[in-house]
Amino acid sequence: MLAAHYAGNRTMTVEEAEPTPPGPGEVQIAVAYTGICGTDLHILNGHMDARVNTPAVIGHEMSGTVAALGDGVEGWSLDDPVTVMPLAWDGTCPACLAGNAHICQNLDFVGIDSPGALQSRWNVDAALLVPLPATLPLRHAALVEPTAVAVHDVRRAELEPGHKAVVIGGGPIGVLIASVARSFGGEVIVIELDPVRREQAADLGFIALDPRDDTVAAVEEWTGGAGADVVFEVSGAAAAVLGAVDYAKVRGTLVVVAIHPEPRPVNLQRVFWRELRLLGARVYQRDDFDTAVALLDSGEIPADALITRTVPLADVQSAFDALTAGAAMKILIDVQAGQEHS
Amino acid sequence: MLAAHYAGNRTMTVEEAEPTPPGPGEVQIAVAYTGICGTDLHILNGHMDARVNTPAVIGHEMSGTVAALGDGVEGWSLDDPVTVMPLAWDGTCPACLAGNAHICQNLDFVGIDSPGALQSRWNVDAALLVPLPATLPLRHAALVEPTAVAVHDVRRAELEPGHKAVVIGGGPIGVLIASVARSFGGEVIVIELDPVRREQAADLGFIALDPRDDTVAAVEEWTGGAGADVVFEVSGAAAAVLGAVDYAKVRGTLVVVAIHPEPRPVNLQRVFWRELRLLGARVYQRDDFDTAVALLDSGEIPADALITRTVPLADVQSAFDALTAGAAMKILIDVQAGQEHS
Ligand SMILES: [Zn+2]
Ligand SMILES: [Zn+2]
Repeated sequence: MLAAHYAGNRTMTVEEAEPTPPGPGEVQIAVAYTGICGTDLHILNGHMDARVNTPAVIGHEMSGTVAALGDGVEGWSLDDPVTVMPLAWDGTCPACLAGNAHICQNLDFVGIDSPGALQSRWNVDAALLVPLPATLPLRHAALVEPTAVAVHDVRRAELEPGHKAVVIGGGPIGVLIASVARSFGGEVIVIELDPVRREQAADLGFIALDPRDDTVAAVEEWTGGAGADVVFEVSGAAAAVLGAVDYAKVRGTLVVVAIHPEPRPVNLQRVFWRELRLLGARVYQRDDFDTAVALLDSGEIPADALITRTVPLADVQSAFDALTAGAAMKILIDVQAGQEHS
Repeated sequence: MLAAHYAGNRTMTVEEAEPTPPGPGEVQIAVAYTGICGTDLHILNGHMDARVNTPAVIGHEMSGTVAALGDGVEGWSLDDPVTVMPLAWDGTCPACLAGNAHICQNLDFVGIDSPGALQSRWNVDAALLVPLPATLPLRHAALVEPTAVAVHDVRRAELEPGHKAVVIGGGPIGVLIASVARSFGGEVIVIELDPVRREQAADLGFIALDPRDDTVAAVEEWTGGAGADVVFEVSGAAAAVLGAVDYAKVRGTLVVVAIHPEPRPVNLQRVFWRELRLLGARVYQRDDFDTAVALLDSGEIPADALITRTVPLADVQSAFDALTAGAAMKILIDVQAGQEHS
């Protein structure tokens, strides 16, 4: 089998390795496709070296099929198409006991804190497997995990049919949030600086605005003077955080989706004046995963538009480099390409 | 009658004036007591000159009795004890139509945007009157309005019996929030820098902490490692905003009560990591006013501890000066003191 490792120093290495059999309660997955996401880029660029022990097999957006069953595993058969919800919680901390296991105070994020999916055979706890319908291509199914993020964000916002939503940032997560919001009955404006991404958002049927235009006036007109029901901050830019509250209606909701490593100035006067609600949203719950599978299977998520290209595992470094340069939306790694049946 | 005006230049003037009869739909109130609040101090210190037209009769925390009825007013009798919910909305803007008239997009805050209660005869729209029980002393009833603010804040937080709350700031609003939270079944820590205020909070039965101590560790221990259910930021300090999120549990709530005229750095990483909820809370709704009356009437609000002293209207400037210097919690103006029956 082949496995890709983050080796430090902005480098991914790809090496032959001997597969290990799945342990008790584990399933061995033949990984088909693994997507590269923003967190993976942060790892590659060394921002998470304090958390990630090198060499590390990373990757947590994936699809595949069951290749072997460990002792005691029931309910799964060889060749079942699957994806993985990559969260392992302790079940005992205050967050878990309060029903928020998905953000357990001692969460193990599989693919960051423990080995991930950039390997052709991957052993995971059977409890983490999510079944895929036979009608969903495995290429599209590699988008289940980021789609589940978007579903979680939209659910956190309590978006309802007829709501108007502003999505700041038209990258993969922004387009996924916009798509999920639309499938939930919302109308969506996407605000994106990059003209290529802006045009893509428009092609997907969203109103796409340039942040250098008077977007606040545009949203006010679009909403009859009320402001948007929900604003999703997906850009990660400090200026976007500062301006985000200006789109929201009285008692509107702002969801902070992007990672902001430093404290950001927030216009608390506006938060107070309009009684806004600012929500953090992180990862997903099992329902979000199931909904993501259904949305991808129904074609409501523009999977083909999001997947810029697919490259073999041997070329994983080129995928990271292209994404770091902002030259692609989503690149999938074809983990089995060019390998003998192994 | 006597009336106090904000005249600009940090000055309150007190002058004799001729009372005008109440117009149609209005009630004339013989104002008994008017409290001075932080907003009044902002007005005195010129921070709101763009909004307040001088000379302005300000004041919006009050109690009194009905002195005269305008044409068409029903349901009120002479000498009825009353307070005023000082909000006049247009009823037509998107916020009003969505059921949030209390933060109408064109709100008239009576006592700021139109004449207030620092006068011995005050004509107000009868719709703004709130009846007081005969058992509630008018001195205590002057605290109904700030207590309604606290009730609104605690309701916004969805504080439930058994919840643990941290109140940052032990001034009048902080103590009111702590008292309301306790009356709703919560346990409360008050964090306050000033030793006199800290001791007062302790005397009122709250756990009172010095922010220079390791308050995060104290809250963590107090909550069994979970963090507080609710945090109220009442201090207005930038450092308090930055640190406030560290007290909150996973999915906990931070209510921004204080006015922050400039954007404040917020630790969005923590908001994201713990899926926190940050809420703006402004003024109150009618239910909050009714609850505030009931809580004051039942003695659950420590009114006597909050009222540092009462001074006659003629000495209103001294009250503003003492409050600006931080030398008092709440000062009431006795609006009828020293006057002939007028
Ligand atoms: Zn846990
Ligand atoms: Zn209105």
